[in-house]
Amino acid sequence: MQRIPILQMGACLLVTIQVDLQDQVALALQDDLAAKIETTGARGVLIDISALEIVDSFIGRMLAGISGIARVLDATTVVVGMQPAVAITLVELGLTLDGVRTALNVERGMHLLRAAHAEIAPHDDAD
Amino acid sequence: MQRIPILQMGACLLVTIQVDLQDQVALALQDDLAAKIETTGARGVLIDISALEIVDSFIGRMLAGISGIARVLDATTVVVGMQPAVAITLVELGLTLDGVRTALNVERGMHLLRAAHAEIAPHDDAD
Repeated sequence: MQRIPILQMGACLLVTIQVDLQDQVALALQDDLAAKIETTGARGVLIDISALEIVDSFIGRMLAGISGIARVLDATTVVVGMQPAVAITLVELGLTLDGVRTALNVERGMHLLRAAHAEIAPHDDAD
Repeated sequence: MQRIPILQMGACLLVTIQVDLQDQVALALQDDLAAKIETTGARGVLIDISALEIVDSFIGRMLAGISGIARVLDATTVVVGMQPAVAITLVELGLTLDGVRTALNVERGMHLLRAAHAEIAPHDDAD
């Protein structure tokens, strides 16, 4: 089964979603991310969805789920890179991604995370 | 056709390869990356292959090709996250990834790029 890699950059984790998120892949991502937050002590999670041309209610729930899991593990999640057409469709569908923070791109998302957590130094490689 | 997203982080570009690299996808990635280096003036390219369980001669050539294109556009490419089993197979096959720099993970790769280019400040979001 395909697993989505989780990259560590200092106190941040970065996930780029490129494949269709079927149930198993999405569940595995939630599990992997929770485990990685625990082992690394990450304070921020960036999820890049710039490759996704469709964000439906399933993906919306999955993003909200990840965001909620990260929150109870004391990490902030920011979804970045949403295509304009996806944003339009989301609003038309009445999906508001409640509880999910968004930013235009990775850099803006990183800014947001830094503002939220002092541990996420400008120095990304705090190793 | 699937396109692999290219994330910008300051003067670095980050590509996470998760899907099987067929010819068209690999060619599109080379094109996109060359265009992105031009438009962003990026000095470093990180290619994460931690999701790849097989690196054959085609992928090896593709990585060398991207590395060469980036070089003439004045950017350094570092391939990161290779699985141990992949490294073993590569050497057994006699594929040495000539001209491709590698690092253990994204953070080490970022260190390498910073050592090579002063523009790639510890401050990744030099925007």
